[in-house]
Amino acid sequence: MKAAIVRKPNQLEMVDMENPRITDEHQVLVQVKAAGICGSDVHIYHGTSPVATYPRILGHEIVGVVKETGSKVDRVKVGDRIILDQVMPCGTCYACSINRGNVCHNLKVRGVHEHGGYREYLVADQKDCYRLPATISFVDAVMIEPATIAVQSLHRAELRDGDVLLILGAGALGSSILNVAKRFNSTIIAADVSEERLSEALAKGAHFAVNMTDQNPARLIRDITGGYGPTVSIDAACTKDTLPFLLDVTGNAGRVITMGFLEEPSPVSQLKITAKELDVRGSRLQNKRFQEVLDLIDDGLLDLTGAVSHTFDFSDIQEAFRLIEKRDPTVKKIVITF
Amino acid sequence: MKAAIVRKPNQLEMVDMENPRITDEHQVLVQVKAAGICGSDVHIYHGTSPVATYPRILGHEIVGVVKETGSKVDRVKVGDRIILDQVMPCGTCYACSINRGNVCHNLKVRGVHEHGGYREYLVADQKDCYRLPATISFVDAVMIEPATIAVQSLHRAELRDGDVLLILGAGALGSSILNVAKRFNSTIIAADVSEERLSEALAKGAHFAVNMTDQNPARLIRDITGGYGPTVSIDAACTKDTLPFLLDVTGNAGRVITMGFLEEPSPVSQLKITAKELDVRGSRLQNKRFQEVLDLIDDGLLDLTGAVSHTFDFSDIQEAFRLIEKRDPTVKKIVITF
Repeated sequence: MKAAIVRKPNQLEMVDMENPRITDEHQVLVQVKAAGICGSDVHIYHGTSPVATYPRILGHEIVGVVKETGSKVDRVKVGDRIILDQVMPCGTCYACSINRGNVCHNLKVRGVHEHGGYREYLVADQKDCYRLPATISFVDAVMIEPATIAVQSLHRAELRDGDVLLILGAGALGSSILNVAKRFNSTIIAADVSEERLSEALAKGAHFAVNMTDQNPARLIRDITGGYGPTVSIDAACTKDTLPFLLDVTGNAGRVITMGFLEEPSPVSQLKITAKELDVRGSRLQNKRFQEVLDLIDDGLLDLTGAVSHTFDFSDIQEAFRLIEKRDPTVKKIVITF
Repeated sequence: MKAAIVRKPNQLEMVDMENPRITDEHQVLVQVKAAGICGSDVHIYHGTSPVATYPRILGHEIVGVVKETGSKVDRVKVGDRIILDQVMPCGTCYACSINRGNVCHNLKVRGVHEHGGYREYLVADQKDCYRLPATISFVDAVMIEPATIAVQSLHRAELRDGDVLLILGAGALGSSILNVAKRFNSTIIAADVSEERLSEALAKGAHFAVNMTDQNPARLIRDITGGYGPTVSIDAACTKDTLPFLLDVTGNAGRVITMGFLEEPSPVSQLKITAKELDVRGSRLQNKRFQEVLDLIDDGLLDLTGAVSHTFDFSDIQEAFRLIEKRDPTVKKIVITF
């Protein structure tokens, strides 16, 4: 089979490999049909991921068809269209013991620490396979994985009806969070530096938009919230300045969610966290959120169509990565098809 | 009556005032019997509290006897020995609506935003009065309020059996947290720069002691925890360096509790919070924790005797504040008696 492997940072090669084989009775052989390119794939490609190891077949947004099943597989059958959970926890560490396998102490993630989806076939444990709704295309189904990341952030935020939710950053991540947050009876404020992205956010259901290039965006946000500040703030921009901004603007007893992997330190005053009893919570990957997203789609509460802007045949994967480099604003989401 | 008032920072005066009177049928008149001096009182006295207003009668650790009751008071009766809850929430803001009155948006705290306990009489709402166990002296009962602060931090930390708890700072606050944490079946690590305080912590029930002046205290802590790191870390030292240290050393899915009011920013890498999905939670004052502390005393699980090192008659309150300035290591807790 063909596989696209990053031998070392910035060196992506198409290679021939032997087809993988089932070695355990709970495993399935999957023929990959579509795989998304995520910002984190670009980081791993360039060697700027703090967690990835090389050589690595990238790709963690993986959609395919079951081709073979081990003798004890009962969750899926040959021919099923599926999406794969990328998170592979050890099952025994403290985080796993409290059902937080997405931050397992010995975590392996497909496409990061283990080979991922940019190849024609792969083998996975049946517990990582989720059947797709009949109505969704392979290409659109790639967006299920980013939706699980958004769902995870809202779980970490304990978003409830009545909350005032500030989503800082209206790019791909922020939009995805907005999409799944809409079903709550909460007030949603989108904040970004781009008027175009803010217009899109308003069209997609945000109630207020705040341009972060305004002279005093914190005051605008406080004014919208009657002086209290948001009760939940999610950092979907993740720059050095965004965390201190959110600690400042978020109201008492609020939750502030970080999603960034920036190592550069931000200046954080502990006074803000203590005096308001804020909860500053990281949200990483997702913790078995696929079924929740699939249920939202089934219930008509989440529409993932129209999010993918470009598709490339697997043989053109290097061209797809080159397009991402160009930072063309028409590029929303690129999916590799097989 | 006599009252000790801070007219403005560094100006503490003993004055004559009219006795307060009950103006509401739910109020009680309290004759103050003992009032502690807390580090935050010293900050307010010196003008280094970011929240206090002046002129102010300080004192929020307040023990006394009920002298008069309003017509609808049924929680206490004349002659009852009581301690007062110092937190006075508005009852209507978002924080109050989710039962987080200790971080009420319009919070008033006795001795900080309202007059406190350094006076002979005061009037309080009956709901803020908690009856003392018969076995505890007025002086020792002052320590109930610091114990509520410790209980609050453990609630914020969601400390559970099986956790590995790191208490950074083995001074008054850290000791108080250790005292109430002991009843959990958790491993307790005390960390401090003072060997003397660490010895005390071990004698009081800590399982391990780590000297923060060691070349690599993070490694020592990780070694104690089998490489995982603590699952709960409480910052009872609250310097610029302690928060980044705890974000670094705490294990995946752990909780890090801040209790400091330091405005000076600490360098915080969001990567630590996101990658480990840490919960960094402020703990401020206490949220109706008096009954829990009184129950612990009743059940023999908390012994507050021996914590008060010095008492001063109310008329000598200025001398008490002067003693605190001397930073004499024999000074643990000073209580003003009436």
